[in-house]
Amino acid sequence: MRIELNCPVNPGDKDRIVLAHGGGGRLTRRLIEQIFAAEWQNPHLDTNADSAILEGLSGGRLAFTTDSYVVNPLFFPGGDIGCLAVNGTVNDLAMVGAKPQYLTASFIIEEGFLLSDLRRVVASMREACRKAGVYIVAGDTKVVDRGSGDGVFITTAGVGIIPPERHFGPAAIRPGDAVIVSGDIARHGMAVLSVREGLGFESAIESDCAPLNGLVEEVCRTATVHCLRDLTRGGLATALIELAGAAGMSMLIEEARIPVAKAVHSACELLGIDPLYVANEGRCVLFVPEEEAAAALTALHRLEIGREAAVIGRVTGAGAGVVELESIIGGTRVLDLLSGEQLPRIC
Amino acid sequence: MRIELNCPVNPGDKDRIVLAHGGGGRLTRRLIEQIFAAEWQNPHLDTNADSAILEGLSGGRLAFTTDSYVVNPLFFPGGDIGCLAVNGTVNDLAMVGAKPQYLTASFIIEEGFLLSDLRRVVASMREACRKAGVYIVAGDTKVVDRGSGDGVFITTAGVGIIPPERHFGPAAIRPGDAVIVSGDIARHGMAVLSVREGLGFESAIESDCAPLNGLVEEVCRTATVHCLRDLTRGGLATALIELAGAAGMSMLIEEARIPVAKAVHSACELLGIDPLYVANEGRCVLFVPEEEAAAALTALHRLEIGREAAVIGRVTGAGAGVVELESIIGGTRVLDLLSGEQLPRIC
Repeated sequence: MRIELNCPVNPGDKDRIVLAHGGGGRLTRRLIEQIFAAEWQNPHLDTNADSAILEGLSGGRLAFTTDSYVVNPLFFPGGDIGCLAVNGTVNDLAMVGAKPQYLTASFIIEEGFLLSDLRRVVASMREACRKAGVYIVAGDTKVVDRGSGDGVFITTAGVGIIPPERHFGPAAIRPGDAVIVSGDIARHGMAVLSVREGLGFESAIESDCAPLNGLVEEVCRTATVHCLRDLTRGGLATALIELAGAAGMSMLIEEARIPVAKAVHSACELLGIDPLYVANEGRCVLFVPEEEAAAALTALHRLEIGREAAVIGRVTGAGAGVVELESIIGGTRVLDLLSGEQLPRIC
Repeated sequence: MRIELNCPVNPGDKDRIVLAHGGGGRLTRRLIEQIFAAEWQNPHLDTNADSAILEGLSGGRLAFTTDSYVVNPLFFPGGDIGCLAVNGTVNDLAMVGAKPQYLTASFIIEEGFLLSDLRRVVASMREACRKAGVYIVAGDTKVVDRGSGDGVFITTAGVGIIPPERHFGPAAIRPGDAVIVSGDIARHGMAVLSVREGLGFESAIESDCAPLNGLVEEVCRTATVHCLRDLTRGGLATALIELAGAAGMSMLIEEARIPVAKAVHSACELLGIDPLYVANEGRCVLFVPEEEAAAALTALHRLEIGREAAVIGRVTGAGAGVVELESIIGGTRVLDLLSGEQLPRIC
């Protein structure tokens, strides 16, 4: 393969993505070799094959997931679209009990996008992969004309093996289970919103974007886990409502026990946004038997990412599958799915 | 889960995608249940889990791939973005010898996109899955604001198991190997171009968009396959150049033997486009030992999709890794990767 390094075909456009970067010819090759493969080098990535070939995955159930990322802006306090795209998919695998192993990454890039920004995103993905212990093994790049996209969209898919003894899911939730949240909520959505809308509290709020697979392994060593769910789009409330519905189990959550950082709380109040519905990218809820809640919490508190973990409520019993919230100001209300869009393009 | 069927929140927008369809709340749920899950129902698809859980995949190497699809227009003679997104990923798996089994599908939809068009795409994916014998097991939907996307972009990922005896790839190409093309070339790119540019020869040219996994299995039953490559972006020429480079093997291709349909040939001539570089979505090249070429060809001709298959050249020997083309009008030239973009957004 003749790859001419550092020799752009069209010097006027040399710092930007052009349509030909998506054409499958010389420029596509160069983009793959110089930007993607150079950063993501690993023994499983072969830029000369149509698919990655993965060995030694046998002997368990395979978890397989995908998510697209369209966050705006691409860079925000505490993260960027790159680490989001890695952590989001790593976390979806971790939530079903899988040990995330391999990812694919597919880029839809708008003509004119800065190569320096692309490099930054790609480097961020490499770093996120390192932290999560996963490899990117295949990818794709498409370029769309100016005005038909928005900078870059990234879609990742991931696979991981689920140890035979793990059967996490709504069906395993039992009456009496403690509901634990792994950390303070609503950081990610508010961090993105703050820079997007120029709200001036940027510095105070950092996204919680992080991989949760280490946390899951740690908790599994100490306690029985019945179910896990990461608190992405729709936030804590949506996750609980969906799980309650799927499990046919009702829950009672105490608002006062839900950890929310002061800056996040103030920003939410200022904007009239309910933190319960704001997206997180490094937080999850865990359902564990009541008698193992203390042990699980101790395990979580040992981890940097789980320092703020708290028991926020319990599964009250089978039946209607509703989530009741005991509010700070007194009284109880039933949580409901949002009909509208609270914060578009936060992931 | 309370899913209110056929009851749009905002009747004025009821036929279109709104931002809230991507918000993770009630409308996202409804979109998933009514459009995606309803069409793609299968025992492996669970809309209540973060990842699909796949059993019985052990006992072989796993192939894993992804591709994004941004074709414009979304519907073209012989196909649409939906069947393209399924077949493209199925074919990438088939090219490494894998039996494609499970796909994920992730949608980036522009606000205002017609739900009827989405339904059409989703139905087309279901039909393509049926033909290829694969299941969609997980998915994602993001909605971007008007002007930040272009209708719909789809990213699929796929996994499949490679039988232990198969080791296809450039490294297996041997001097003397016959180079076989599985059918007539350049249909897909010209079909898309014809509708996009309103060139008036639409009816004459249909895309070749199709799954190739059946063809691969059929040929493998009859002949030894050394290497396969589908002829997508960059067409036959780019595929051969990349393989020659990766294998370090030179090839001699006879232009006169390359099957090109009359209508495609005329359209290419009219527009000054070289069919060798035009994308296909249901064609591949196969490298087989010279002495098995006749048997492979017989197997291909038995299939509807392989009726036009032809031996188009041979691997001349190790060394420079160049592809020479013996032209119809006489003389020989070395094929080179395109620097620019011939046909943007054809896949």
